[in-house]
Amino acid sequence: MSLQKLRVEVFKANIELVENGLVVLTWGNASGIDRGKGVVLIKPSGVSYDDMLPGDLVALDLDGNVLEGKLRPSSDTPTHLALYRAWPEIGGVVHTHSTFATAYAQACSSVPCYGTTHADFCASDIPCIRALTEEEVEEAYEANTGKAIIEDYARAGLKPLEYPGALLSHHGPFSWGKTAGAAAANALIMESVAKMAYLSRNIAPGLRPEPEYITRKHYLRKHGPGAYYGQK
Amino acid sequence: MSLQKLRVEVFKANIELVENGLVVLTWGNASGIDRGKGVVLIKPSGVSYDDMLPGDLVALDLDGNVLEGKLRPSSDTPTHLALYRAWPEIGGVVHTHSTFATAYAQACSSVPCYGTTHADFCASDIPCIRALTEEEVEEAYEANTGKAIIEDYARAGLKPLEYPGALLSHHGPFSWGKTAGAAAANALIMESVAKMAYLSRNIAPGLRPEPEYITRKHYLRKHGPGAYYGQK
Amino acid sequence: MSLQKLRVEVFKANIELVENGLVVLTWGNASGIDRGKGVVLIKPSGVSYDDMLPGDLVALDLDGNVLEGKLRPSSDTPTHLALYRAWPEIGGVVHTHSTFATAYAQACSSVPCYGTTHADFCASDIPCIRALTEEEVEEAYEANTGKAIIEDYARAGLKPLEYPGALLSHHGPFSWGKTAGAAAANALIMESVAKMAYLSRNIAPGLRPEPEYITRKHYLRKHGPGAYYGQK
Amino acid sequence: MSLQKLRVEVFKANIELVENGLVVLTWGNASGIDRGKGVVLIKPSGVSYDDMLPGDLVALDLDGNVLEGKLRPSSDTPTHLALYRAWPEIGGVVHTHSTFATAYAQACSSVPCYGTTHADFCASDIPCIRALTEEEVEEAYEANTGKAIIEDYARAGLKPLEYPGALLSHHGPFSWGKTAGAAAANALIMESVAKMAYLSRNIAPGLRPEPEYITRKHYLRKHGPGAYYGQK
Repeated sequence: MSLQKLRVEVFKANIELVENGLVVLTWGNASGIDRGKGVVLIKPSGVSYDDMLPGDLVALDLDGNVLEGKLRPSSDTPTHLALYRAWPEIGGVVHTHSTFATAYAQACSSVPCYGTTHADFCASDIPCIRALTEEEVEEAYEANTGKAIIEDYARAGLKPLEYPGALLSHHGPFSWGKTAGAAAANALIMESVAKMAYLSRNIAPGLRPEPEYITRKHYLRKHGPGAYYGQK
Repeated sequence: MSLQKLRVEVFKANIELVENGLVVLTWGNASGIDRGKGVVLIKPSGVSYDDMLPGDLVALDLDGNVLEGKLRPSSDTPTHLALYRAWPEIGGVVHTHSTFATAYAQACSSVPCYGTTHADFCASDIPCIRALTEEEVEEAYEANTGKAIIEDYARAGLKPLEYPGALLSHHGPFSWGKTAGAAAANALIMESVAKMAYLSRNIAPGLRPEPEYITRKHYLRKHGPGAYYGQK
Repeated sequence: MSLQKLRVEVFKANIELVENGLVVLTWGNASGIDRGKGVVLIKPSGVSYDDMLPGDLVALDLDGNVLEGKLRPSSDTPTHLALYRAWPEIGGVVHTHSTFATAYAQACSSVPCYGTTHADFCASDIPCIRALTEEEVEEAYEANTGKAIIEDYARAGLKPLEYPGALLSHHGPFSWGKTAGAAAANALIMESVAKMAYLSRNIAPGLRPEPEYITRKHYLRKHGPGAYYGQK
Repeated sequence: MSLQKLRVEVFKANIELVENGLVVLTWGNASGIDRGKGVVLIKPSGVSYDDMLPGDLVALDLDGNVLEGKLRPSSDTPTHLALYRAWPEIGGVVHTHSTFATAYAQACSSVPCYGTTHADFCASDIPCIRALTEEEVEEAYEANTGKAIIEDYARAGLKPLEYPGALLSHHGPFSWGKTAGAAAANALIMESVAKMAYLSRNIAPGLRPEPEYITRKHYLRKHGPGAYYGQK
């Protein structure tokens, strides 16, 4: 992929966050990576989505050195880079403060799988990552945010592309995918699923997750080896 | 009706789902049938609503054989076909994951009739269809989803056009009507009614359904033999 | 006022209901009256807001005789007419099924005055009108809906222009004002106030109405003889 | 700054309130001050946002004398002026009745800091200002509203630009900032943060504020001397 094509894709993913109501003001960012070139493109920090142009995206290497761009990259860049370094299978990362996903994150609660909408995304809870310790916050807040995600996933044996998004305790959602566009779609899915979970639990306090055989079926018809959802 | 007219109608019904905020990403589909020709037109699977054109709708016979179209039909096609085969009086079917209707479905709860907005739609609870068994899920998930709806309606003695929509346990709403457009309107009504029911029950925990004589009056002034709502 | 001017005003009031998100499908109607001519203009029944033109409004006298128009008037016309006959000071009436106001109506609950937004509208609870009896429903549902509002207002000593809107038990909100436009604005205010009341009560269960001296001050600075809100 | 530049900025801040869904009808106002000239520009009272033009803004001195403009200034003008007089560091003030912030105000509840979205705004609760006494309401309601904010801030040792917004008991939010635009952005932030707090507390009743070391880190990375959020 040429860098220009990646630039368009990352720019579009950023704009979609706003159009889908996931980002207020500058509370969100999307990035994408060209694995061959080792180049990450990410939103500049604190720049209004109304004013941002494709050329404003900042190009970095995986160690965070700026390769191109006059603006400072998103303050969350170290989190994005940590995920790219740990997980070679991902190609895009998104962070938002979308309302219901953030509400669950603030409550330090994972999102239970109450139905098939959720099961189409992942086959169990949307994970809630542990809070950082005071030391981790002081030392390198954003890089350690990435570290906490990676550690929690490793500990629980979760594969990044099977659970393509998580909630950061006290903070909000991060999502990822094979491309920046997929990561942005996953941000929208997490918000929708979190909202429905919130409502279902208010309708039926003490609600249990749906039966595992339904979850599995839905997940596999969309993502399994014999998936038959979507076009070939 | 010419197939082209049906095509426009089914296409429009699909687009209305998005415009009315009932569908996120590709989480929904509408179909319509030409009973004379025995042809069903349905949304292609996993195709973005932004990119979809009327010509992308897939034409099938009632056994699911593709008659026309280059794309795969919606993965929910067997549910649509089962309803068309069982209920000759319906001409359109819609499935969405709209927020409040899905929240009730996830809670495996029917929607009680708390007011006249609901009574204008149907004269009692919006039914919640039983969950499929593990065997039914494994064997033929989508076709058995249709079977469960049809069985529950038969068991409860509900007429499809008098209860033109139901919630699938753990899943979401299906609706239908004489046309695809009517089915799409019913999807919007179910979502609105479910939202109001959710709020009313939070305002007054333990709320009872409205008196039956009010429900009956409202239902009949719109749908009964002496209906006087709307134009002749 | 010429009938054409009234026609534009009533048409605009109807459209505003949709634009302000108070009306889904055809669930609402606005009317206005020319007191000099004794003519009421009202939305036709069950006609889509997208297709409606100013010329589609139906002209009636206060007894409900159609003076002009090819379409049937709103099925709620007898309620509108009852209010116009009882209350000579009002010039417009609106009915909607807006979400939060309807949720309170379904819960048969008035809306307590929790803050100054409410106090700018009326100086105490937004009243919830009693449910109709079975006999009243059977005999003349819509006319008796008007009768119930008028009786409850008389019994409680409420002046229509000081409490320019009420909730009908099990049903939804009606509002009115000196003009159709004022009635439409009051419909929007009732919905906003009901939503805020719903949220406040969830934040603070057992919440009491705000102190009466604050309510009075806010109401009077906008509506009292020494009002200083707005332009002269 | 020329008065024309301030006029554009204050006008834009007012319009943004509507575009961001914070203001219904005329329930809100923004002002800005030119400290050099001692001139405040503020929205005229009760004028529709649809009809308002930049030239309709009213110019006042800090004592409330109208310097320019044919319309009456916002009825909340004395509150704005009190804040400008007490706090020389602020350049803009905004008042709205936005839904969730007002719901908290009506519940006389501050908004606890449940997460980093909040911490990016201020480093502890969003304060809820005491209710006015009956005497204060009768004597000079709007001026005393400003007085109550200023007194509560002084008593609690809060700096206006570190807590750039507060809830008025029974009423709604006021916000401020170095400019009218910053005050308008703060109004949007308060609404978003209040909504998320509402949801988080419903997800996890009894939820405690997030650890102070996370709050401090987020606040300081955006507002502290070593802030690294945004562009230089």
